[in-house]
Amino acid sequence: MKKIAVLGYGVVGSGVVELFYKNKEKIEKNTGTELDVKYILDLREFPGDPYADKVVHDINIILNDPEVGYVAECMGGVNPAFKFVSSCLEAGKSVSTSNKQLVAEKGDILLQIAKKNDCNFFFEASVGGAIPIIRPLHTCLAGNDISAAAGILNGTTNFILEKMFCDKMGFDEALKLAQELGYAEKDPTADIDGADACRKVCILASLIFGKHVYPDSVYTKGIRDITLEDVELAEKMNGSIKLIGSTKRLEDGKILSTVMPMVVPEESLIAHVNGVFNAIMVWGDGFDKTMFYGRGAGKLPTASAVLGDIIDSIKSEHTVTSHEWVLDENTDFIANIDSLVAPRFYRTDLCTSEVYENAANAAGVTVDQIAEGGCVISNCDNKTADTFAKALEEAGVKVVSHIPVMAD
Amino acid sequence: MKKIAVLGYGVVGSGVVELFYKNKEKIEKNTGTELDVKYILDLREFPGDPYADKVVHDINIILNDPEVGYVAECMGGVNPAFKFVSSCLEAGKSVSTSNKQLVAEKGDILLQIAKKNDCNFFFEASVGGAIPIIRPLHTCLAGNDISAAAGILNGTTNFILEKMFCDKMGFDEALKLAQELGYAEKDPTADIDGADACRKVCILASLIFGKHVYPDSVYTKGIRDITLEDVELAEKMNGSIKLIGSTKRLEDGKILSTVMPMVVPEESLIAHVNGVFNAIMVWGDGFDKTMFYGRGAGKLPTASAVLGDIIDSIKSEHTVTSHEWVLDENTDFIANIDSLVAPRFYRTDLCTSEVYENAANAAGVTVDQIAEGGCVISNCDNKTADTFAKALEEAGVKVVSHIPVMAD
Repeated sequence: MKKIAVLGYGVVGSGVVELFYKNKEKIEKNTGTELDVKYILDLREFPGDPYADKVVHDINIILNDPEVGYVAECMGGVNPAFKFVSSCLEAGKSVSTSNKQLVAEKGDILLQIAKKNDCNFFFEASVGGAIPIIRPLHTCLAGNDISAAAGILNGTTNFILEKMFCDKMGFDEALKLAQELGYAEKDPTADIDGADACRKVCILASLIFGKHVYPDSVYTKGIRDITLEDVELAEKMNGSIKLIGSTKRLEDGKILSTVMPMVVPEESLIAHVNGVFNAIMVWGDGFDKTMFYGRGAGKLPTASAVLGDIIDSIKSEHTVTSHEWVLDENTDFIANIDSLVAPRFYRTDLCTSEVYENAANAAGVTVDQIAEGGCVISNCDNKTADTFAKALEEAGVKVVSHIPVMAD
Repeated sequence: MKKIAVLGYGVVGSGVVELFYKNKEKIEKNTGTELDVKYILDLREFPGDPYADKVVHDINIILNDPEVGYVAECMGGVNPAFKFVSSCLEAGKSVSTSNKQLVAEKGDILLQIAKKNDCNFFFEASVGGAIPIIRPLHTCLAGNDISAAAGILNGTTNFILEKMFCDKMGFDEALKLAQELGYAEKDPTADIDGADACRKVCILASLIFGKHVYPDSVYTKGIRDITLEDVELAEKMNGSIKLIGSTKRLEDGKILSTVMPMVVPEESLIAHVNGVFNAIMVWGDGFDKTMFYGRGAGKLPTASAVLGDIIDSIKSEHTVTSHEWVLDENTDFIANIDSLVAPRFYRTDLCTSEVYENAANAAGVTVDQIAEGGCVISNCDNKTADTFAKALEEAGVKVVSHIPVMAD
């Protein structure tokens, strides 16, 4: 009988144990083998917990037990997770993790260790929570040249923006509600300022393009500056403002990765993704585009993805060849934010449509939409956008907000 | 070097060959092995085609060539596809197919033959075209108890309904446009009357619940009776009418599978899926709900799914244990359409809201929404819905349409 160890008995770790025992019979049928959780590693004791007898405090017990073949890492953070995970992989034990920070910062190293030891380092739960995205990318869609992926990768900010959009709340009020409901942390920085979405973009970019993309290679801007006025104006122009994580191969072959608020036109399914849900659109040459939607966080949704990984590592006798990327020390393949080409949404002082038209002429773009106090101009790069904004300012019209528009 | 054979060089088969050679290098890296297409089986010759030299007319050439390990079946229909596919599997060659009719009618038999011969019978392309759905169901989501799946499984009917909704076309006009654009066949019966979606429901139901569900076990009703008036009234009540394929485990453990027009409230992402796109929502205990969206048909989108399957069969040394279902001769597990519990949308003669309220009281349901000439009543079974309709008729109000509402 194969045995599983769970590292960390917090929200996600306890979810993994709960869901495993709930569906043990189904999982054993799926894998064609008997299974059990042998150890739960945590610093704490859990008196009264039905699995209290499985709790251990020393990682070496797990490392030295040859019966343990599969490890679920649900501790979070890089230390000591990195040390524990590398040791498990070196001992030939496959590891499944929900730890996006670990994957974004150390994925290349851990994938190499797994390969050397003919086991697997899986991380479906690290992007989009329960949403199947990592595995489809390198299995179902593997016949394609994938060119881009973009979407809503952080549920907390999506909840806040929806409250602004649907209930006309200000940003601070919406954030407070998110905190009250437990969707946002007391210190909401990682969500609000985009660091959480940035890590997920790194993982998507690395898997799709085969080279490790580190967090500092991703242009990251959060939603702190988005006002109710921006949201209302976007709505008038049939768009929603969403925090979009995106990675894309440009025409010159470089990779542009961004996290920033974008106006999403209502024609795109992404505009209709509300609440704490996540959704990721992927583009490729054969399938055109496909979208994956679901719960991006939470105890059982995250546990669902970790368990799916454990099940796959049990069924994979060797390292899965397609689930990897490498380190390229030469970062020339990373594009700068100045390479961004997109339509642009502007909120400005009140002015006539003629003022917008004149500024657009000066910049060599067209005005695609106009509403009171704002407009959308056609696809352009940052330099052209600056020329447009400067022309508006020269005409005495103040630019209050400038937000790129997401292409579908 | 491993070799691939393609059966049928029509739209899908030629797409498989085209996409394979376009992305050959990527696919070889993904699988970790050199690959080539050795044979293309077709009755016709293809003079001038770049792969004309690979065309053969006799299946035995493929069956008797031990170098061929993987077969893409893109012929369609049950005969001779069933014979050819069984022979390939018996020869230990894994088969990937886009042929939904073959899977819906013969899936149980072919899966058993694959298992006996330690190879695989894959059919990602048979449901939702390019959309990754079959593989995520039995891998990424395998830690869950999946209770239901429902969605838009036929792009042609979705295109027609969208034209009615957005452009206020009548059904006949929208069908004609779909035919002109090549989305609908000259004989559109299989799409319009639901047979195509029915086959896809069979495949989803069989995989999720583990027992072969045949087409005659699925309650199937097409969109022929849907009028512009129905669509407009649904819109007034913030809903879209979509042809929904659905399979669900009821409280008594029985499986209810249906294909029928349903009113989809705009809160559901499914309501926003337009054009020829497909989308499938899946429900389970851990992940809650997740949706998969993309192109449900077309040359390269379908080829993308077939190639993904070939790639997976190359990486799987043995039969994938989770990709199977069995035949249960006792069909007691199939629920009747009378077990359907759903809110109901009614279009009627003009009447006062009091008439709806009185009829609802008589049936023991509540009226959830009222618009001029129609209403939506709360969750109820068919018997209760009949009581409600009868009470309306007794009050002298004619019921023109009765359409179940999709729950999210």
